[in-house]
Amino acid sequence: MSHYTAPLRDMKFALYDVIGAEALYARLGLENATRDLLDAVMDEAAKFAGQVLAPLNAIGDSEGCRFDPATGTVATPPGFREAYAQFVDGGWTGITGPEAFGGQGLPESFGAALKEMLDAANLSWSNYPLLSHGAVEALKRHGQPWQQDVFLKAIVEGRWTGTMCLTEPHCGSDLGLLKTKAEPREDGTYAVTGTKIFITGGEHDFTDNIVHLVLARLPDAPAGTKGISLFIVPKLKTARDGTVGERNAVRCGSIEHKMGIHGSVTCVMNFDGAEGYLIGEPNKGLAAMFAMMNSARLAVGLQGLALMDRAWQGALAYSRERLQMRSASGPKFPEKPADPLIVHPDIRRMLLTCKSLAEGGRMLALHAATLLDVIEHAQDEQERKDADVLLGFLTPIVKGMLTEWGNECAYHALQCFGGHGYIREHGMEQLARDARITTIYEGTTGIQALDLLGRKTLQLQGAGLQQFLRMISEFCSAQAQDPAMIEFVLPLAEAARAWGELTMEIGRRAVADPEEVGAAAVDYLAYSGYVALAFWWAKAVAAVNRDGQPDDLRTAKRETARFYFARILPRTQMHAAAIRTGAGNLLALDAALFDS
Amino acid sequence: MSHYTAPLRDMKFALYDVIGAEALYARLGLENATRDLLDAVMDEAAKFAGQVLAPLNAIGDSEGCRFDPATGTVATPPGFREAYAQFVDGGWTGITGPEAFGGQGLPESFGAALKEMLDAANLSWSNYPLLSHGAVEALKRHGQPWQQDVFLKAIVEGRWTGTMCLTEPHCGSDLGLLKTKAEPREDGTYAVTGTKIFITGGEHDFTDNIVHLVLARLPDAPAGTKGISLFIVPKLKTARDGTVGERNAVRCGSIEHKMGIHGSVTCVMNFDGAEGYLIGEPNKGLAAMFAMMNSARLAVGLQGLALMDRAWQGALAYSRERLQMRSASGPKFPEKPADPLIVHPDIRRMLLTCKSLAEGGRMLALHAATLLDVIEHAQDEQERKDADVLLGFLTPIVKGMLTEWGNECAYHALQCFGGHGYIREHGMEQLARDARITTIYEGTTGIQALDLLGRKTLQLQGAGLQQFLRMISEFCSAQAQDPAMIEFVLPLAEAARAWGELTMEIGRRAVADPEEVGAAAVDYLAYSGYVALAFWWAKAVAAVNRDGQPDDLRTAKRETARFYFARILPRTQMHAAAIRTGAGNLLALDAALFDS
Repeated sequence: MSHYTAPLRDMKFALYDVIGAEALYARLGLENATRDLLDAVMDEAAKFAGQVLAPLNAIGDSEGCRFDPATGTVATPPGFREAYAQFVDGGWTGITGPEAFGGQGLPESFGAALKEMLDAANLSWSNYPLLSHGAVEALKRHGQPWQQDVFLKAIVEGRWTGTMCLTEPHCGSDLGLLKTKAEPREDGTYAVTGTKIFITGGEHDFTDNIVHLVLARLPDAPAGTKGISLFIVPKLKTARDGTVGERNAVRCGSIEHKMGIHGSVTCVMNFDGAEGYLIGEPNKGLAAMFAMMNSARLAVGLQGLALMDRAWQGALAYSRERLQMRSASGPKFPEKPADPLIVHPDIRRMLLTCKSLAEGGRMLALHAATLLDVIEHAQDEQERKDADVLLGFLTPIVKGMLTEWGNECAYHALQCFGGHGYIREHGMEQLARDARITTIYEGTTGIQALDLLGRKTLQLQGAGLQQFLRMISEFCSAQAQDPAMIEFVLPLAEAARAWGELTMEIGRRAVADPEEVGAAAVDYLAYSGYVALAFWWAKAVAAVNRDGQPDDLRTAKRETARFYFARILPRTQMHAAAIRTGAGNLLALDAALFDS
Repeated sequence: MSHYTAPLRDMKFALYDVIGAEALYARLGLENATRDLLDAVMDEAAKFAGQVLAPLNAIGDSEGCRFDPATGTVATPPGFREAYAQFVDGGWTGITGPEAFGGQGLPESFGAALKEMLDAANLSWSNYPLLSHGAVEALKRHGQPWQQDVFLKAIVEGRWTGTMCLTEPHCGSDLGLLKTKAEPREDGTYAVTGTKIFITGGEHDFTDNIVHLVLARLPDAPAGTKGISLFIVPKLKTARDGTVGERNAVRCGSIEHKMGIHGSVTCVMNFDGAEGYLIGEPNKGLAAMFAMMNSARLAVGLQGLALMDRAWQGALAYSRERLQMRSASGPKFPEKPADPLIVHPDIRRMLLTCKSLAEGGRMLALHAATLLDVIEHAQDEQERKDADVLLGFLTPIVKGMLTEWGNECAYHALQCFGGHGYIREHGMEQLARDARITTIYEGTTGIQALDLLGRKTLQLQGAGLQQFLRMISEFCSAQAQDPAMIEFVLPLAEAARAWGELTMEIGRRAVADPEEVGAAAVDYLAYSGYVALAFWWAKAVAAVNRDGQPDDLRTAKRETARFYFARILPRTQMHAAAIRTGAGNLLALDAALFDS
């Protein structure tokens, strides 16, 4: 069984020392968000994560959720329900929720750090609040006042939870194919009919009511993605004054048996003329859903980060304890029968890969989350617009790469344990299984990559990329005179230049052949992720070199940054080389000949 | 539930058309091994794999093995025992076994193709014969005549199975630490006492007797790896005439709960003064164990190959069926509501990665296995010695890289399925879980890498590498005039040159600092694997371009080779770059500061 200790020191370093969140919150007028308060909340969250959620992680995996076909109900694993009650009592469900609806209105970027802790402690459990957070976003932006009073408030207060019902058996990434229909009734409600699959938290025993946000088609809706509307379909029919009535005609039909996240229930939901309430405008449901996509995708990126950190903590502890072989340069602990694993360069390669990706990913993700705060609170319209563009650009990088790195780090961490990593009791294999879903749900890595390269870069003439390159360029200029920074600034500036050039090159190819976008996308996503992380690692070194930072942190950050630049950043070479070979080698082989 | 169809066409293409096994078998005097017979046997094996073993794969995973603590017995999953009985009846246990002991003496390289089928159909089940094969190797080379008559014959005939008992709780890779002791008795037997863990097939219900090969220390043995001897410890005491007696004092104490291969039992074995028989010379047990290492490690490499192929088959079928989105260059199947996944370049990238690694890995592994035949049957001593050196060099590449690629392909294949890949019923997630052990057992990837770079390359002045480079160079010279080959020959020749140069460079660094070996090892292993595969892909194109090969195969091989050279071979750049940064960035950070 593995333990979890929230990396408070590194979270604070990233948020305050590198990203400068204190000054930002002050500038945005977030008066609640004083450093004292935030530190106290963070400490409490760390306790909740480490003491309440982490001990339930293994049992959630071994017991899983149990479905009763007779009643359509789901029992979550032992302890999950009680932990949720404690979470509600502590006021955690509304920590970043709007104050007008019972929330505490703390910054989203701060909430992101808390999310990382919950996810690392117990990914399955944390999926329930995650989905609620998505519903909060949709209701906050698109809900009618009564819908906000009734549903938003109940979710912020944790009395009810939310879901997102998008996928159907025949359509996952391609929502244009969806068939669920919504027929208007005379009373202004809608009768929603159809089957949704892969519904996280579709049924559970945490709360009485569950608020499903459902994509469906109106009778006269145009085909494809332009004919999709969004509906609230509560488990219990809910009047406009908030009175909860009888059971609605929505029911969990079965639950999936999955590779991991066994404690997070994944439901088939059958809607059989269920009472629903239109949210937002007719046929604009996808736009409403997309509005909460940034936050939901960032949230899954944080899951990747969380798993990186949890895996890394386990691998580090084991590598320090486990004695095996002698160091090649002579015994390091001659009094012991062998040296600990951590003396061996290849173990260090795996550990430092995890450390550099996790700590780098933390800066990347927390910075992206600050853009949510800017979008919501900045006075200046242009600043809000810029933040929206930059966030749109960074979101697929955070979602796509942090989840891929989550899988990679879980892989390395398990490998550090040798045969013991493959055994359940050490908890490492659970992390690897849990991580595997994160590159799939909320849009696969391939979908993130198309979003990044197609929609967010080529369609916008590189507006987001230009902003990020400007950040790099300004940083490099500011640091150019510092001899301690030159080893990072030079390769970073070169990487940024090459990133821009590669993007232009793909753009030119894509004009000639639209297939070039899909052919380059995942490699471009990875390329972007590695350059972005190089920027944050350079920023970290600059931050830690400032007066007042402790020596151990300074050394650790500098050496990890050196490792990153030396051994991880060169991955960009491979991705650039692959991109430059173009689409031809992917498309030449006829589909019928793949098994020739 | 996923199906499995043995890739007979590609196996035969690799073995006969690319590697030229027919001529080799004739030259080695393997008169049994006629093409007609081999083809017939291969077809039968494919049926057994597809019809008997494959249908048991999912149930093996869901039911697993059951341990009864009261009796110390293990029940294998439903159907496993019956399948083994059928396997024995069919004479499969002795297919490559020595004829003098009831085997059929077919070539090991041919046996490797059969192994791939069994592994792909049902990895868990196939672990039982795999371990027996290891025991056969050890007994064949080091057993006394009576031990061969009794134990070897019974294993070849499938009446008993074998195990390898190396690992102890405190020592995995570092066998020098092992504590199990063997005390001589007056009757010439030994009393073996100790605890062994991770013993695959340590207890089961396939056969009455189980032949444990156990590493242990004699009372006067020197410390470390030079004081280890090898013993036969049967589950049932066995007299020199083969008479089976009472239960020996060896007992399964518990079984592990693992991430995957649930049908393959992993036991803790307690030896409590169990009767054992010394095999080989005192204190030379590790050498005896290493003698069967090549074959056992190749066998695990074949597991990686098998999983690549099974995963690829599943992903290809799904990608052809599942309709999702339109091709970026316009609908390819306008009559359908969407195009199948396989039109999308990124899906093709994943599929072609699997195809190129699996088919390339097959040539690499089968060629390596032919060296086992050369070592055993060649008349010329120098030829045998050369083959031994080359096999020693290739074995860690096959074991290390085919298992890493097995994991990679299982990852891609699951990803092609989207959310459905994460659900148990499709069978893809089982492949990913099963694959995860293969980079660990029989020596982790890190251990393979040290073996390749340290023992097999630097210590032997690159003797194995030189042989392989000579093969490449001769091939390139022979193909240099063929315009159809130039696109492969030029980059292959360059990759070979760079491989040699990189090796020399590491050698020079290692003289100055022994830590450079460990710092470079895994990247060097990967680098070697990618260049070796480039050679085999070029060979495949040359072979398929010859007269008489069908057009579909010619096209498929050429385009897959192009994909490989364009998009996979560039990974060498990243590995070379990482190696060239040296050990410093791995060793600089004090172990105490890793979590600073």
